[in-house]
This record gives sequence, C-alpha cells and structure tokens, in this order.
Amino acid sequence: AARRGGREMAAWARAVRGLLLDVSGVLYDSGGDGGVPIAGSVEAVRRIKASGLKLRFCTNETQATREQFVKKLQGMGFDISVAEVTAPAPAACRILKERSLRPHLLVHNDLVPEFAEIDKTNPNCVVIGDAAENFTYANLNEAFRVLIGMEKPVLISLGRGRYYKETDGLKLDVGAYMKALEYACDIQAEVVGKPAKMFFESALAEMGIPPQQ
Amino acid sequence: AARRGGREMAAWARAVRGLLLDVSGVLYDSGGDGGVPIAGSVEAVRRIKASGLKLRFCTNETQATREQFVKKLQGMGFDISVAEVTAPAPAACRILKERSLRPHLLVHNDLVPEFAEIDKTNPNCVVIGDAAENFTYANLNEAFRVLIGMEKPVLISLGRGRYYKETDGLKLDVGAYMKALEYACDIQAEVVGKPAKMFFESALAEMGIPPQQ
Repeated sequence: AARRGGREMAAWARAVRGLLLDVSGVLYDSGGDGGVPIAGSVEAVRRIKASGLKLRFCTNETQATREQFVKKLQGMGFDISVAEVTAPAPAACRILKERSLRPHLLVHNDLVPEFAEIDKTNPNCVVIGDAAENFTYANLNEAFRVLIGMEKPVLISLGRGRYYKETDGLKLDVGAYMKALEYACDIQAEVVGKPAKMFFESALAEMGIPPQQ
Repeated sequence: AARRGGREMAAWARAVRGLLLDVSGVLYDSGGDGGVPIAGSVEAVRRIKASGLKLRFCTNETQATREQFVKKLQGMGFDISVAEVTAPAPAACRILKERSLRPHLLVHNDLVPEFAEIDKTNPNCVVIGDAAENFTYANLNEAFRVLIGMEKPVLISLGRGRYYKETDGLKLDVGAYMKALEYACDIQAEVVGKPAKMFFESALAEMGIPPQQ
C-alpha cells in the first residue's frame, strides 16, 4: 500500500485530468437538519482543488435549487460554487426548451424555481423529481392523469435512484415513483441525471475535458 | 345476430357450466359515493342465476371487507352474498398461515378486519393492497424499510392493477405501488388476485367446477 502513496503515482493516476464528485452520501449525509459532512470530505475537496485537477460536483440532488444546495455545502465548510455543480434540473430545462415541452411538475417545492423560465401552461409532459413530501396520493394520481391523457405520454425523470439514507432513516427515491408511473401508463421514462450517459458527458463538457475510454 | 339469441345457442355456450363475474367496472362503477350500477347488470346477474348456471363474483376489490362490499352491492339491487365472492384478502390469509408469515399491512383501513386472525407482530413480510388514501409518503417509506430490513424481502400484492376509474376520475391501482417497492428493493412481488392462475383455480374449486382448456 505504501508504494501507491506519495510520489509513486501509477501511470493511470497521472493521466487523470479531472474528477467528478458525487455529493449526497459521498461528501455529506443529508437529513432533516440539513445534513452533516462525512469525515475527511471537506479536506479532500480542498486537496483536489490544490492539486490542479479539474473538479465538478455531479449530483442527482433535486430537493433544492443549485443555489440552496451550494449554500448548504458552503455552510458545512466545502469549497464549492454554483458554477461547479452539474444537476438534473438545468439539464431537464435544456431538453424541455429544445423539444418545446411544457411540463407538469411533480417535484420538491424547493426545486420549482429552477423551472421559472419554462412555460408550464397546458402541459404536454410530466417531470418527476425527488418530490419527498410532495409524493402524496393526490399528486401521484394527478401526474398519472396528465400522462394517461396524452396520445403519447412523455415522462422525464430527474434520476432513477432506488432509495437513499437520511439522518432519520431510508427514503424511497424518485426511481420508485418513476416505476409506478411507468407501469400505470405502460411507458418508459426518459432519465435525466446519473446514470444517463448524456448527463456525464455534459459534466465533462462543462469541465472542458473530452471523454476517454 | 338474431341466430345467436334465444334457443339457438352455440355448442360452446351449452358446454358452459358456470361463470366468473368481475365486479368493479363491470357490474358497477365505484366512487366516493359508493358507486352506481352499470345499466343492465343487476338484471344480468338475476338472469344468470335463474338460468341454473353456477356463478361466482371474482374481484380484486381490496378497499373493503367482503361483508361491506356485498352490502354495498346488495344496496344497489344485486343478488349477491358473501359466500359467492372470491377476493384477494382471504386468499392472502391462507398463504400467510401456510407459510407462517406475519405481515406488515399497507392496505385500506376498511380491509384490515380481513386480517384479524393473523399474527402481525414482528413482521416478516409486507402485504400491499389498494390502500388509496393510505398510500402516503410516510406509509410507503415505512413499508419499504420493513422490506429492505429483511434478509430476503417478501412482498405479497393483492392484485396488480395499473389504474381504475372512480366517479371522480382515474386512480393509480395497487400494481403501481407494488412496482415502486419491487424496484426499490430489487425484488418480485407475489401477486394474489387476478390475473394469478391460482386465484382463478380457487374460484373454480369454490364453484365445484374443474378447469378445462
């Protein structure tokens, strides 16, 4: 193990030009109180930046705007800015604009401002995120009715996570509710966010580093 | 069309010895006010019974006990008794007893009495039905935590319907929530109720008519 440390870096490691870092569950554990940093992670981000490596924070976080998310992380001591964050909502907004889609939103209240510029009248698609407390029986039925009323239902899902841990226990993630709507409508959702290839490619493009195999 | 009516019955029709009738959406449309009979269905049940054919009501209804369900239908004018109804909850209870399973219930409040005889302490499986208003974010997370805490999660689903119509609109059915839990836990639910083969076979056995191809 000692050989791998210090200056005796392997060839593959010397070839690394940038890093994509996950955030929730990697840099910090989320929870009702805002969450707590995972031991060593604040220092790790500082060292990566000091090393000259490029760095982006690549998250499926959809319970807050990037502004709120970054502010929370800064409050925990992380060196992070909004411009360094790749998140599903802005990526979804690009898709909505490109395809003239007007979403019915089933998302967390705190994410709604990310869609401020998007026309939401007379919806022709549904966007689902980790809506948490907004995953009510009434809201799920409403999203379903919007979908089933379309000739060809379009469901855009901000991630496809199964579940995650908060300080008060495990919670079902957006992927579970995505599956419920997929099954009810007999459709396939389009996933924006990890693990979609296009999402990682966006993050690389934002770093200015081409993908390599 | 006239040839098919009256006494000129086809050979296959003369071979029919009994009928399984679906109920919700076939005999009546359900809704918050109890629902309304579908035109001609009260008379159809009367004529089937008068014809001497055996008859069972085969339902995936899990929003009420059979007693409540039958009472509602009688109130609409249907000739129906509890002993004529094949429903998922009693079938599930047989399975629970046979396999010594102690369920955590995610079902409609009105269905709970069907499980009165079942030991529900220290659950080692989850039973999901059409819980309707009980499909809350908190209840779904709780059912998920019970499942994911098991070495080998057992999920028993009372039906796998996608959605149904009530007088005030379409509602997601138990199948959608079943899929959410299946995906989150990476498991397959065991379905009790239509379209499970065993469920139809039970109904036939209760009528005393052997299955034929």
